Amino acid sequence: MTAQLPARALQLRSLVKADQTVELFLETVEVPAPGPGEVLVRIEASPINPSDLGLLLAGADASAAVQSGSADRPVVTLPLPAAAMRAAKGRLGLPMPVGNEGAGTVVAAGASAAAGALLGKMVAVAGGAMYAQYRCVDASLCLEMPAGTRAVDGASSFVNPMTALGMVETMRLENHVALAHTAAASNLGQMLSRLCIAEQIPLVNIVRRPEQEELLRSAGAAYVCNSASPAFMDELTAALTETGATLAFDATGGGRLASQILTCMEAAATAAAGGYSRYGSAVHKQVYIYGSLDRGPTELSRNFGMAWGVGGWLLTHFLQKIGPDGIERLRRRVAAELTTSFASSYTHQVSLAGALQPDAIAAYARQATGSKYLIIPSA
Amino acid sequence: MTAQLPARALQLRSLVKADQTVELFLETVEVPAPGPGEVLVRIEASPINPSDLGLLLAGADASAAVQSGSADRPVVTLPLPAAAMRAAKGRLGLPMPVGNEGAGTVVAAGASAAAGALLGKMVAVAGGAMYAQYRCVDASLCLEMPAGTRAVDGASSFVNPMTALGMVETMRLENHVALAHTAAASNLGQMLSRLCIAEQIPLVNIVRRPEQEELLRSAGAAYVCNSASPAFMDELTAALTETGATLAFDATGGGRLASQILTCMEAAATAAAGGYSRYGSAVHKQVYIYGSLDRGPTELSRNFGMAWGVGGWLLTHFLQKIGPDGIERLRRRVAAELTTSFASSYTHQVSLAGALQPDAIAAYARQATGSKYLIIPSA
Repeated sequence: MTAQLPARALQLRSLVKADQTVELFLETVEVPAPGPGEVLVRIEASPINPSDLGLLLAGADASAAVQSGSADRPVVTLPLPAAAMRAAKGRLGLPMPVGNEGAGTVVAAGASAAAGALLGKMVAVAGGAMYAQYRCVDASLCLEMPAGTRAVDGASSFVNPMTALGMVETMRLENHVALAHTAAASNLGQMLSRLCIAEQIPLVNIVRRPEQEELLRSAGAAYVCNSASPAFMDELTAALTETGATLAFDATGGGRLASQILTCMEAAATAAAGGYSRYGSAVHKQVYIYGSLDRGPTELSRNFGMAWGVGGWLLTHFLQKIGPDGIERLRRRVAAELTTSFASSYTHQVSLAGALQPDAIAAYARQATGSKYLIIPSA
Repeated sequence: MTAQLPARALQLRSLVKADQTVELFLETVEVPAPGPGEVLVRIEASPINPSDLGLLLAGADASAAVQSGSADRPVVTLPLPAAAMRAAKGRLGLPMPVGNEGAGTVVAAGASAAAGALLGKMVAVAGGAMYAQYRCVDASLCLEMPAGTRAVDGASSFVNPMTALGMVETMRLENHVALAHTAAASNLGQMLSRLCIAEQIPLVNIVRRPEQEELLRSAGAAYVCNSASPAFMDELTAALTETGATLAFDATGGGRLASQILTCMEAAATAAAGGYSRYGSAVHKQVYIYGSLDRGPTELSRNFGMAWGVGGWLLTHFLQKIGPDGIERLRRRVAAELTTSFASSYTHQVSLAGALQPDAIAAYARQATGSKYLIIPSA
């Protein structure tokens, strides 16, 4: 421990209470001394990803936040719908720390060589509890950034890059030759688009607005379909036919989009096969739902033959499948291409207290493409 | 060819016409002489399975059949909804023969030893075009029945028995330890129940009516849940917890049943795991949809974590996966247990002309559990 470190620092907490509310606040916690294999990281940047919102908001109605407390120690209370309350019963009364990933400087290290080697280095960490000023983690969880990397560039080096790489790896593992992706103009979507261009993987980008089409096309995307277009189904079928994509990753979850993609994939497959088959084509068509921008039910029309699957896709489960060696391989690639293929951009930088402003909560909970929050815990 | 064989015989056909109707009729066709490796089977019994209805009715409204023609050569016309007409465009103007499976006596054989060995034998065949008085097929497609087997007992020796065995094999291939099954009082459901009892595989039977519960329980089923019960979700969760079933086969397809099963599987999995996980349990939960008793959309609430899958399951695709050796192994087992594990029962036996009566069409199209039609082409 160096002399400059404070004894206590701030950590954001999310608490589901028996009165059917979730309370967000900043806790003052001890800054721990790292154990032998551990390092203490001063968190300098941590993104608010869609994958953080479940733990942070517990399914609350984000437009109904009420703030109390002081300006630098705000307390925000949000009402929970009954279904969200039922789903959250396992965390009732437990003030949960939040934040999947972030980046910062190693300011103290345990006695091990691995820990000591990181002292003074900029590292990215996906350890949870990252919405905090300091975080003590095992040295093996740290990804050392190339010299000169800024925290803001390293903050999103895990969730989005590993998800984009995981989509491409899943495509190969399950013997598909091309991909489709919804909400394709998101930070993750742009990343996937760059990755697929670099690897010459045909990618069908599905977006909802003309300016998102333009954004992706100007960055070199060859196939962009707008789901708001009256000719969407025909345009998507044409793109799927040209690319041969039989695997899609869907961030929306609710509604009919997954079903529409399967319908168009089947149209592409039967056009290629010719002739009549009473059970549809034998080509397996798969949609993985990895997000829930639309929290309503998924509606499948089942007019796409019998060779189809829809399922959940979670980065954690995928990483378990590929194991430590696979993870290490992907992480090295991310570190090497952090400011190119895997670059992220943010529209808002906020302090820990700033992340608890009702306006900010309503904005990041909307998960709108083109709006992205980064927490700067020292601000 | 023996002298007793007619030169021509009847074959049922289904024709989608440009005026947006489907026409069912009996065609007089040549009785072919078998080629070297072929046999000619006099079809003596052939069931009307749910899997035959797609080709037979082409998605027509079965309650609107209009009959013309004569008593022994009826012609039935049914109107096609627009969506069914679109789906049927690949078969427009082609009079399709129908009937997945059946049983009968080999009355002529080609020169090969394999064909000759079957002469005079009762065989079961899954060759398509079985709603006919005679059918010429490759000898390798025939499953020879044990001596003394009646055609009525061999008629359903492929679709339902192989499907029941395929469900159990899929369970093992995909590392599940127990099964759930909907529409569980059907012929197929009763077969699966007998098979699971014999193999000591825990099976959760899901039915819709009290008398179906009774039927399965009296045959020894340990777990039967009625989806019409007000306590259905709790009862299903309890049965899934006890059995550890994380795989279900669903014959209904439309509506919320597949989603409810996943919700209850997740409740069983999280109760077993304890603690709070923001993304739900890591236990993979799978529902395969193999039927479409409810032709409406499948609605998934996605309140069952991220480790889940829903997909189509088709016997043909499964058999391709296990290959010729696997198929042969399953077929031998079916032949040996045809009147025990794999017994079928029928409520109606009809002639080819009888299968084209509007009342009969409306009845078998309903696919009601407890009602099952068998065609006797020589009647």
